[in-house]
Amino acid sequence: MSRPSGRAADALRPVTIEPGFARHAEGSALIRFGDTHVLCTASVEERTPPWLRGSGKGWVTAEYGMLPRSTHSRMGREAARGKQSGRTQEIQRLIGRSLRAAVDLTALGERSIVVDCDVLQADGGTRTASITGGYVALCQAIATLGLKRSPVFGQVAAISVGIYNGTPVLDLDYDEDSVAETDMNVVMNEAGGFIEVQGTAEGHAYRREELDAMLDLAGAGIRQLHQIQAQALAG
Amino acid sequence: MSRPSGRAADALRPVTIEPGFARHAEGSALIRFGDTHVLCTASVEERTPPWLRGSGKGWVTAEYGMLPRSTHSRMGREAARGKQSGRTQEIQRLIGRSLRAAVDLTALGERSIVVDCDVLQADGGTRTASITGGYVALCQAIATLGLKRSPVFGQVAAISVGIYNGTPVLDLDYDEDSVAETDMNVVMNEAGGFIEVQGTAEGHAYRREELDAMLDLAGAGIRQLHQIQAQALAG
Amino acid sequence: MSRPSGRAADALRPVTIEPGFARHAEGSALIRFGDTHVLCTASVEERTPPWLRGSGKGWVTAEYGMLPRSTHSRMGREAARGKQSGRTQEIQRLIGRSLRAAVDLTALGERSIVVDCDVLQADGGTRTASITGGYVALCQAIATLGLKRSPVFGQVAAISVGIYNGTPVLDLDYDEDSVAETDMNVVMNEAGGFIEVQGTAEGHAYRREELDAMLDLAGAGIRQLHQIQAQALAG
Amino acid sequence: MSRPSGRAADALRPVTIEPGFARHAEGSALIRFGDTHVLCTASVEERTPPWLRGSGKGWVTAEYGMLPRSTHSRMGREAARGKQSGRTQEIQRLIGRSLRAAVDLTALGERSIVVDCDVLQADGGTRTASITGGYVALCQAIATLGLKRSPVFGQVAAISVGIYNGTPVLDLDYDEDSVAETDMNVVMNEAGGFIEVQGTAEGHAYRREELDAMLDLAGAGIRQLHQIQAQALAG
Amino acid sequence: MSRPSGRAADALRPVTIEPGFARHAEGSALIRFGDTHVLCTASVEERTPPWLRGSGKGWVTAEYGMLPRSTHSRMGREAARGKQSGRTQEIQRLIGRSLRAAVDLTALGERSIVVDCDVLQADGGTRTASITGGYVALCQAIATLGLKRSPVFGQVAAISVGIYNGTPVLDLDYDEDSVAETDMNVVMNEAGGFIEVQGTAEGHAYRREELDAMLDLAGAGIRQLHQIQAQALAG
Amino acid sequence: MSRPSGRAADALRPVTIEPGFARHAEGSALIRFGDTHVLCTASVEERTPPWLRGSGKGWVTAEYGMLPRSTHSRMGREAARGKQSGRTQEIQRLIGRSLRAAVDLTALGERSIVVDCDVLQADGGTRTASITGGYVALCQAIATLGLKRSPVFGQVAAISVGIYNGTPVLDLDYDEDSVAETDMNVVMNEAGGFIEVQGTAEGHAYRREELDAMLDLAGAGIRQLHQIQAQALAG
Repeated sequence: MSRPSGRAADALRPVTIEPGFARHAEGSALIRFGDTHVLCTASVEERTPPWLRGSGKGWVTAEYGMLPRSTHSRMGREAARGKQSGRTQEIQRLIGRSLRAAVDLTALGERSIVVDCDVLQADGGTRTASITGGYVALCQAIATLGLKRSPVFGQVAAISVGIYNGTPVLDLDYDEDSVAETDMNVVMNEAGGFIEVQGTAEGHAYRREELDAMLDLAGAGIRQLHQIQAQALAG
Repeated sequence: MSRPSGRAADALRPVTIEPGFARHAEGSALIRFGDTHVLCTASVEERTPPWLRGSGKGWVTAEYGMLPRSTHSRMGREAARGKQSGRTQEIQRLIGRSLRAAVDLTALGERSIVVDCDVLQADGGTRTASITGGYVALCQAIATLGLKRSPVFGQVAAISVGIYNGTPVLDLDYDEDSVAETDMNVVMNEAGGFIEVQGTAEGHAYRREELDAMLDLAGAGIRQLHQIQAQALAG
Repeated sequence: MSRPSGRAADALRPVTIEPGFARHAEGSALIRFGDTHVLCTASVEERTPPWLRGSGKGWVTAEYGMLPRSTHSRMGREAARGKQSGRTQEIQRLIGRSLRAAVDLTALGERSIVVDCDVLQADGGTRTASITGGYVALCQAIATLGLKRSPVFGQVAAISVGIYNGTPVLDLDYDEDSVAETDMNVVMNEAGGFIEVQGTAEGHAYRREELDAMLDLAGAGIRQLHQIQAQALAG
Repeated sequence: MSRPSGRAADALRPVTIEPGFARHAEGSALIRFGDTHVLCTASVEERTPPWLRGSGKGWVTAEYGMLPRSTHSRMGREAARGKQSGRTQEIQRLIGRSLRAAVDLTALGERSIVVDCDVLQADGGTRTASITGGYVALCQAIATLGLKRSPVFGQVAAISVGIYNGTPVLDLDYDEDSVAETDMNVVMNEAGGFIEVQGTAEGHAYRREELDAMLDLAGAGIRQLHQIQAQALAG
Repeated sequence: MSRPSGRAADALRPVTIEPGFARHAEGSALIRFGDTHVLCTASVEERTPPWLRGSGKGWVTAEYGMLPRSTHSRMGREAARGKQSGRTQEIQRLIGRSLRAAVDLTALGERSIVVDCDVLQADGGTRTASITGGYVALCQAIATLGLKRSPVFGQVAAISVGIYNGTPVLDLDYDEDSVAETDMNVVMNEAGGFIEVQGTAEGHAYRREELDAMLDLAGAGIRQLHQIQAQALAG
Repeated sequence: MSRPSGRAADALRPVTIEPGFARHAEGSALIRFGDTHVLCTASVEERTPPWLRGSGKGWVTAEYGMLPRSTHSRMGREAARGKQSGRTQEIQRLIGRSLRAAVDLTALGERSIVVDCDVLQADGGTRTASITGGYVALCQAIATLGLKRSPVFGQVAAISVGIYNGTPVLDLDYDEDSVAETDMNVVMNEAGGFIEVQGTAEGHAYRREELDAMLDLAGAGIRQLHQIQAQALAG
């Protein structure tokens, strides 16, 4: 099997994280998975959603957007159409759930952190890049709070896997994703636990052994992403 | 371990499917997973979405809604609020993808089938009941078309699994779902292939062996649902 | 004259009311006027609209919806279109006004009751079925409040009348309604007083004696509905 | 009984119609029912709604609006709130139905006439003034079409009646309407036929003899309005 | 050069202001610039926007609308389309800014004045007529407050200028505006200071000397408008 | 006088233009005016708005957005709120008009170019940076069309000027803009002609000599921007 990208089946695209990219935000990172570029910012707000008021707990949420010409052909601007698509809402719910899985909301206290993930350029894997980069922005923002005990108790990253031409492959780019038979997004913590697994058969249903192989690939990829995140935060 | 429902860990709730419940629709089924009741209708429309026109292919799509007082406390009506929630959109996209996985859209021809899944009463598992019942309504509607070769090439059903109190359990009701540590929805075909796996850690991340145990439970549950579907369609 | 339904000019369709149909609601009823089936639920909320706060008075309001395939051909889902039609709003305003005419809002106290009328299947007369069934759900819900003095001081039911082929007829079904020259909805209390009269000429203007004949028919029909309501509430 | 307005129970407010008030519209009239002032314009458009295309039939429709400070205290502007209220939609549907009752849509041909009724100043009875003035604008606009046979086959006007302090009265102004026990709008043609009757009990249900008395008052009032319309059109 | 209107290059259209046109508003004026007629009302509200609460300051804001048939051909009603156009929002922001430039918001106290400018008939220059007439309505409304010291410290009026056929001209009507090469709106106070200058090249870019000539024309025109405003307020 | 930025009254911030920043767009540029960073992309679409179809003419339009955390404190996302603010619409209308002033739409042919200006980081002057950078993206996109005769007949750039502490200054940053007494945006072509002048008094009205001084400053600043644009396009 030969992937369109020329990568080995278990190879990530070049991944870089540029922390502190945005001047105003409490936390930020520009993350690149190859030609997929996502600007992640984390904003601290000293209030929580209504249903948490008085509970002593905080909240972490995410919003996601694509610049209209981040894509091969221009997409309509969601602000102009007056609503976010189902896909956008599904992705931002996923990012928010994934990041909350790493944070002790009680230790955070009654405040919110909003993680905005805006895709400047898209080439597949924007949601996994958003989670991986959003984690870095989130950690930066929390660090500015000067809390005695960090509410971050885990490390979260995400990667896509799929079946391309019958072979399980890691980190699909747009060309691969368009023709993959199965597309799976996996979010894991540093202990190898699963935060989220979302696998969709695009062409034919996938068998249990294919599922197992994809999860193995994902686990190895995410361990690399955890290292890149740690370096970005240490830098 | 003892489930709130008193069921064995691998036991479904009583499942019934009442086909032909709605007088006007080409296909319909009232499906009950215990106290979860969903009215599924399938409507044939002799047109396709714009991007398919002239392609010779048809389309299958789904919409999902909950009656305002299907739930323990009344929810606002989405029509009155002027938009569908992210959850609603996510669920109807899942139902649509799952049902399309069983249909040869070229054999369907240039027409659409809209499967409406409306929750009359909710007690957990509304999306899996919608997929399972929606499949029956879809098959009924397609049968009315009198096509020489049926475009339905697979059988699709769905069930939820989770980790309750440390133990993997099948088909969570509302009380169980509220406190489950992990919630996973699995859609499978009659050959045991996966159409969709969506597993979310609610409390702590789940380990690989927990994932495996949940998938085993789901597979056994879905085989029972396939039989109930077949009986409903044979009736 | 022979009606399409074969009924006598002054004959209702078979009317049944199944109280307690919905498990979660404080009050509920599935009402059937022939093939028109409406699920009515009444939800108690311990708050009132802003303009009543502090007044000591409560509120009764209604919402109305049709399942997309309750009708002969599928209608677009209002939640998906992002707004309720003028017809929907007109009907739910009518239901709300009619039910409030039977309730002493001061005796109800500072709480709201929301009556949801969702049409599962439509064959003409959905608004009159909604009022008639909504009254039963409302009474059930109020009974759960355990108030010393019931705020319900009247009994309210509704029926449609029209001129079909020159003859005044009672309780038009869809086939009759489509070709009727006049369509009138009448809401009355148990003392024969009018709560609401809405008569629209569809074909030609109706004369005073036709109006009188329609009101006579409506009065007789509503007396039967009052008995059916009373039996459902007594059951 | 003494009305707040000092008028006799069967007296209209001073009614004037100023045709041709708006320079650009094909038909227009400023109608005044006392301090209620409505600007009605009729616009001819050489197209019909989609469901009539190719049918050879035309369409008459109406839109209604109130200037934000036409009322005693300022109302929010519907354009700014992003939606028309249920009341607005109910009124414009009523105006449209009433005016269509006077027009042979086949004789009109495949074109539309949009009647806009904008309330410059409100003091009760805006919907009946809109119908009465809208009819004049509509006739003017149709006259500009130069059709051989006029599609206008009837004359339509509207008035409100109510029970004030136990007595049936004609043409309620705002002060009377606010405290009336019953409010009824009646639309009639020149032959005394009813186009629309909408009577709502505000306080207590109204009896059959009260209904009869209100209809008698309305009939007499509308005969006067028909004369005022005819003079305006003859002018 | 000969203008379509036959006016001299520096001549205003006949301008009239009819104060107190609307019965309910605290201040009102019907202003006519030739065939452009705008009804301006000013409403006092005893609250301020959230960001001013507790600041001791008040607010002046404006809303703008056109009746659907104020124009040569009918425009869609913004309330029916569910949103205000960009043009509408731009104009109402301009009117609000211009009027605030004449008012000491601290002296006004914690209350708001909403100036509604509704175009009854349009023939070019609706935004400048709105500012000029809105000022009169605003002054009337403020006078009703009985404040010891008037918060109005300046006089504001507006006019359009443009280059028509190579010549700078004052107060363009619709026919002139449609073919003008440049369109400029100027808002000035009674001391000849500029509140707002908005000049747009429609055809070719305008030179500095053309800009200067237009500003000279505008200054002279606005002095006349200030006199007409003063007479209306003195009347 | 000493500006907060320490710049001379007639000094621009450091301006850089990075053309070709976005991989997928036909034209793109990342423009920086100091800490204001705007990503401009130009997308070619082989269709025009409805009102131009069949006219042989093309169209150039612009859309504008700010990333939620481009600003000092986070702004709500317009896509999530479901509408673009009046400010956004006003700015994108200004950008579109300005760019169209440099293009012969007939020579462009029946196609559209959409220029998206997305603010990654804001520090004052985002609209003038958008116009200046958008021009570069537009020229790049048009160059890809391979037209014999370029439809670009002019060069367009924009800058802000204002009165700070009584002195006219060029290119205000956020700190200066917040306290400026007057804010003026000027769009000019390479021949020194004005495309657009928009000057707003924030504090007190500005005098004619202040206006003149601001226009002089703007002219000198724009000549520098024209050189920077030319270098970016030549590179």
